[in-house]
Amino acid sequence: MRSISEENIRDQIVQAVETVRRMNPLVGSITNTVTINFVANAQLAVGGSAAMVYLPDEAEFLAKASGAIYVNAGTLMPIYEQTLPRMVKALHEAGKPWVLDPVAIGIGSLRTSLLRQFKAHKPAVIRGNASEILALAGLWGLDGGTDGSTVRGVDSTDQVIAAKAAAVALAKWTGGAVAVSGETDLVTDGSITAFSHGGSHFMNKITGSGCALGGVVAVYTTAASSFIAALTATAVFNLAAKRAEGRADGPGSFQAAFLDELYNATAADIANNPLEVEGVSP
Amino acid sequence: MRSISEENIRDQIVQAVETVRRMNPLVGSITNTVTINFVANAQLAVGGSAAMVYLPDEAEFLAKASGAIYVNAGTLMPIYEQTLPRMVKALHEAGKPWVLDPVAIGIGSLRTSLLRQFKAHKPAVIRGNASEILALAGLWGLDGGTDGSTVRGVDSTDQVIAAKAAAVALAKWTGGAVAVSGETDLVTDGSITAFSHGGSHFMNKITGSGCALGGVVAVYTTAASSFIAALTATAVFNLAAKRAEGRADGPGSFQAAFLDELYNATAADIANNPLEVEGVSP
Amino acid sequence: MRSISEENIRDQIVQAVETVRRMNPLVGSITNTVTINFVANAQLAVGGSAAMVYLPDEAEFLAKASGAIYVNAGTLMPIYEQTLPRMVKALHEAGKPWVLDPVAIGIGSLRTSLLRQFKAHKPAVIRGNASEILALAGLWGLDGGTDGSTVRGVDSTDQVIAAKAAAVALAKWTGGAVAVSGETDLVTDGSITAFSHGGSHFMNKITGSGCALGGVVAVYTTAASSFIAALTATAVFNLAAKRAEGRADGPGSFQAAFLDELYNATAADIANNPLEVEGVSP
Repeated sequence: MRSISEENIRDQIVQAVETVRRMNPLVGSITNTVTINFVANAQLAVGGSAAMVYLPDEAEFLAKASGAIYVNAGTLMPIYEQTLPRMVKALHEAGKPWVLDPVAIGIGSLRTSLLRQFKAHKPAVIRGNASEILALAGLWGLDGGTDGSTVRGVDSTDQVIAAKAAAVALAKWTGGAVAVSGETDLVTDGSITAFSHGGSHFMNKITGSGCALGGVVAVYTTAASSFIAALTATAVFNLAAKRAEGRADGPGSFQAAFLDELYNATAADIANNPLEVEGVSP
Repeated sequence: MRSISEENIRDQIVQAVETVRRMNPLVGSITNTVTINFVANAQLAVGGSAAMVYLPDEAEFLAKASGAIYVNAGTLMPIYEQTLPRMVKALHEAGKPWVLDPVAIGIGSLRTSLLRQFKAHKPAVIRGNASEILALAGLWGLDGGTDGSTVRGVDSTDQVIAAKAAAVALAKWTGGAVAVSGETDLVTDGSITAFSHGGSHFMNKITGSGCALGGVVAVYTTAASSFIAALTATAVFNLAAKRAEGRADGPGSFQAAFLDELYNATAADIANNPLEVEGVSP
Repeated sequence: MRSISEENIRDQIVQAVETVRRMNPLVGSITNTVTINFVANAQLAVGGSAAMVYLPDEAEFLAKASGAIYVNAGTLMPIYEQTLPRMVKALHEAGKPWVLDPVAIGIGSLRTSLLRQFKAHKPAVIRGNASEILALAGLWGLDGGTDGSTVRGVDSTDQVIAAKAAAVALAKWTGGAVAVSGETDLVTDGSITAFSHGGSHFMNKITGSGCALGGVVAVYTTAASSFIAALTATAVFNLAAKRAEGRADGPGSFQAAFLDELYNATAADIANNPLEVEGVSP
């Protein structure tokens, strides 16, 4: 049963990678100014096309024109109070998938207000570190959540596995998938949970590895289910990071090598990246 | 006739490159947050000095203090509604050259309003991909323009040569030059048209190669005519990209190598980069 | 006397480097969008954790949650009129060190107003090029200051040594330290002045080397006195830049190599970077 499932998952990963490279899908983002360049370059490296905006009507336009949208709550600006609700509404009306990255959840009133509003709009994929996933489930009143008190800036203070119940609850709520980033990454659709291996310790020594992952998840949602999109992005990141570490002398050369490896990874290599799949009790 | 013209053009390119390296001109920019770092680093690599601002009075100051200004309409913020008209007015009053990059023309009401206002202020150089040049000529009611419906986010869906009439019409209107970026780049002052060869497929796999080109065009407008400035920037980009591709393992290492090659290219190498020049029927 | 002093300084540098690597302190920043990514990556490379915000209540939160804060006045946005005074007040109330980088002092009314307000809130470290330090001392009405007329955009037009009296006056006012960046860097606490050697000509060919230094000074203020923090950051930058130049083919590869060398430098190497210390007449 498991081997069939895994085989099927790997086939779908191959499909997602190849479809994106063939179609070059446009994926818009509202994302933080710290890592916005890295997000765009990662999206381009895997075969997508990137566009970022701040203004409300531009966000509505982009929601319609894009195959999917990436929303990263990093460096909020005042205009986001209008932009994000209008964009998310447009996404809902257009039936477009979007990816939510609840960066720095717990910091500031606008962030809390926006993240609370997003509950009703059900992102296709939620991506975060363990602390962010725990806090988002808490904010949304779901099982396994916490009150967010363990989030420290943008870093996680919790282990991935500790966020499993929260991730499952969030995925069940949205009907999509949740990706929890950490040493071993967890991806769940609420019933199936996959663990993806690889990566590099340098991923924590460059800013934006999580943001770039979220942006790449959004690219794959144009070509696969939420679960497969999250898993494909996670797998190519783990593969590229591992390979890049072998070529790097430090975090600066690592970042360049990582983008190279995202670009060079074949669909088969990505699908064969170490992966475990398990069913989840209901 | 043509060979003399080309010889003269190459001499002027040498002059532009050497003057910039000697003078280190300050060139201010209002540009998007996605690629702002790459724009500044490209400007520095060719010998300029970079400064970016958002606020209206700072933009006016910079218009006076800079040798030229680069305006990229990428990620508009609300304050741009005041900043850009005031800056462009200050540029006009100071008689300073400026470069317009009509990124994502057609997306959003503020962008359309600003780009329409710019018609009267005649940028020294307009740089864009084919779809953007077609759409800007359309917005300004000039020959060869389209209604912008072919712009897809930030990418071109048109071929460079299809934008030739629009580029010529824009150049005639402004009395400056237009650079259309693509596989072979076109630069025209409305009567002479030059085609510049080289480049790399990796230029479409990193974000901001067009923005960086616009920023570098602005640097050269401090030291040459609009046409020569646009052509010099295009030539050094084509040369540096071609050389960088030979050293790169993917888009990450390509970007670093590209900045290296911008910095290392000699004036003679830039002037001798493959180039064709043709007259344009009036 | 001097040799004991130097020995003691070097011991404190070792302590600062090791403490930061062990503690991974969170250091928030309000900084410009041009170099924000480089600032964060430099902070991570030396062992810190980075977080950037724009909104007032988020800045207050970050002032409390961080070990120190970096404030760079580069690309001001309208909201900064509220954000920066509230953040600085929160820092004062929490007794947290903060680093001020008076980038582009003299450009625009908001910048002038904010920089004037900061006088009362006494940053632990002020970092700038010679022209910025001279202009800030002038704005604050201190000895050795100028009226700022020599600042050209973001570049210095003055020599480091010409800013020594202004740096000493600023340090005496704040009770902290001042770092003046240039070919040889000067760091003073108002009575002791140290000169740090090394660096690379490429530091002026990449944007943000000064910003990144300011961000790293803030990281070290969580683990050392203002003077030692400024000196440690300056020393690791001079060491890393010198080493990176030896591996670089131009400014693009230099930047990646520089981050690598920040990460790889040992505490002993940093402490042993060429340094001269002198007393300062009162």
